[in-house]
Amino acid sequence: MTEVTGTARLRVRYAETDQMGVVYHGNYFVWFEIGRVEWLRQLGWSYRQLEADGIRLPVIEAACQYRLPARYDDELEIHTRGRLASALRVAFTYELRRVGDQQLLATARTVHVPLNPAGRPCRLPAALREKLS
Amino acid sequence: MTEVTGTARLRVRYAETDQMGVVYHGNYFVWFEIGRVEWLRQLGWSYRQLEADGIRLPVIEAACQYRLPARYDDELEIHTRGRLASALRVAFTYELRRVGDQQLLATARTVHVPLNPAGRPCRLPAALREKLS
Amino acid sequence: MTEVTGTARLRVRYAETDQMGVVYHGNYFVWFEIGRVEWLRQLGWSYRQLEADGIRLPVIEAACQYRLPARYDDELEIHTRGRLASALRVAFTYELRRVGDQQLLATARTVHVPLNPAGRPCRLPAALREKLS
Amino acid sequence: MTEVTGTARLRVRYAETDQMGVVYHGNYFVWFEIGRVEWLRQLGWSYRQLEADGIRLPVIEAACQYRLPARYDDELEIHTRGRLASALRVAFTYELRRVGDQQLLATARTVHVPLNPAGRPCRLPAALREKLS
Repeated sequence: MTEVTGTARLRVRYAETDQMGVVYHGNYFVWFEIGRVEWLRQLGWSYRQLEADGIRLPVIEAACQYRLPARYDDELEIHTRGRLASALRVAFTYELRRVGDQQLLATARTVHVPLNPAGRPCRLPAALREKLS
Repeated sequence: MTEVTGTARLRVRYAETDQMGVVYHGNYFVWFEIGRVEWLRQLGWSYRQLEADGIRLPVIEAACQYRLPARYDDELEIHTRGRLASALRVAFTYELRRVGDQQLLATARTVHVPLNPAGRPCRLPAALREKLS
Repeated sequence: MTEVTGTARLRVRYAETDQMGVVYHGNYFVWFEIGRVEWLRQLGWSYRQLEADGIRLPVIEAACQYRLPARYDDELEIHTRGRLASALRVAFTYELRRVGDQQLLATARTVHVPLNPAGRPCRLPAALREKLS
Repeated sequence: MTEVTGTARLRVRYAETDQMGVVYHGNYFVWFEIGRVEWLRQLGWSYRQLEADGIRLPVIEAACQYRLPARYDDELEIHTRGRLASALRVAFTYELRRVGDQQLLATARTVHVPLNPAGRPCRLPAALREKLS
C-alpha cells in the first residue's frame, strides 16, 4: 500500500496555551486534524466535500508522545502520513516540528473508521482508496 | 414580562487558563451557555429537547465586561436572567461570581434568535413563551 | 490619533464547529486575538516580545455581532483596527469576512488595559505609542 | 504499589460538540484532566496547591480509545486510577462512562513527569508519594 505524506503549517495561538506557559496537551489533537485535512487536500480531496457526500471519519484511537513543549507564537509544521490500515480503517501518523530549527516536538497516531450516512462503517470512496493503494 | 433567574455552578478547568495565568477571555462564553442551559432546566425545559424538536437558539450578539480574573480551580456561580426581548428575540444577562467571597468577576449579555427546522426565525414554543411572559 | 489597520487570514477548523453545524460563537474571540497579534506584527511589534518585556494586555471588554455563520473549512479574513482609547486603554475593532465573496460575517470590539510586571495598569512602550498617535 | 481510584462527574457542554453531532475527540483530554484533579482531591491534595508549591505535572504521553460517542448534555463519570510508574513518572488510566446506563464510552491513559521550579524532573512530594506506595 502507498503511504502519502502531507505538510501543514500553523502558528500557536494564545488561546492554546495554559498557565504552565506552554500549549495545553489536548490542543495538539486539533492540530493533527489540520494535518489530516491538508493531507487530504494535497491528494485532491476535501474533507468538507467528503462530509457533504455523507461520509464521516470519526476517530476511534488517538495517541500522542510529547517531547518538547510548543509555545505561544511558535511556527509549527505537521507532517502527516495516511494509509488504509484495513478495508474499514484509516490510520494516520504525525510529526510536529518547529519551523525554525526543525526540532521534533511531538509524534502522534490516530485511527479512523469511515461511516456512511446511516452511521455504519464503510469503505472510503473508490477514487480515494485508489490513491492510497 | 416576567424575568426568570437561574443559577449554575462550575469549577475552572486547567484547559481554560492561558499563559497569563488566568482564564482565557473567550472561555467565559462557554460558561454563559451553561448558565442559559441551567436556566432553561430550572424552567422545566431542556435545550437538548428543544434542539430535538428542531428549534435552535443561535447567538446574534454577545458582550462581556471582565472585572476580576477567574483563576484555575476557582468555584464559580453564574446567575442568569432571560426574557423575551421581542417576538423573535431572547435576551440573557449574566453575573459571574466566585462562590467563596461572592466577588463579581464579570457581567455579560447575549441575544438569540430562535430558528425553526428550515433555518427561519421563529417564536419559541408557546409553553416556554408563557413561562416568560 | 492614528488608526492602524491589519489583516489576518485563517481557515475554520473542525474543532471550532459545534453540533449546530456552524462555528461556536465563543471561538470568534480566539480569531479576533489572532487579528490583534497580526496587527501588532504589521506595526513591527510582537505580542510575544511585549510579554517577554513584562507587559500584558488583558481584555476588559469584548463584544461581537454575529451576522452570518462561519462554517467548517471557510477561509476567513480579519480586518483589525487599533487605537489608544486613553492613556491606559487600547481599543480594537474587527471585521470578519469570508475570503471568497467578501461577505461580512461578524463585527466586534475589544478593550484592553496594559499591565506592567507588577500587575498595575501602565502605558504601552513609547515606541509603540508613537505608532498609534 | 497502591493504586488509588477517584471519580468525577461532568455534563457535556454545547461548546464541546462538533458538527458531527458528538463531542470532539480532543476534548476528552480536558475531561481526563478533571479526573486527575479530582483523584488528587480525594487523596487530600490539590493540584492548585501543588503548582503553588512549584511542582508541575506536564503530560508526556496521552492515548484514548473511543468506543461510543459522548453527546451534548450527557452526564458522564470519569473513573481515574493513578500510580507511580517509576521514581519520576506518574501514570493514570481512565474509564469514561455515561451515568444513566453505565455504558463505557472511552478508556484512556496519560503519563506525567513531575517538574520542579527549575523545570527539572523531580519526585513528587514525599507525603503524596506515600499515599501512592
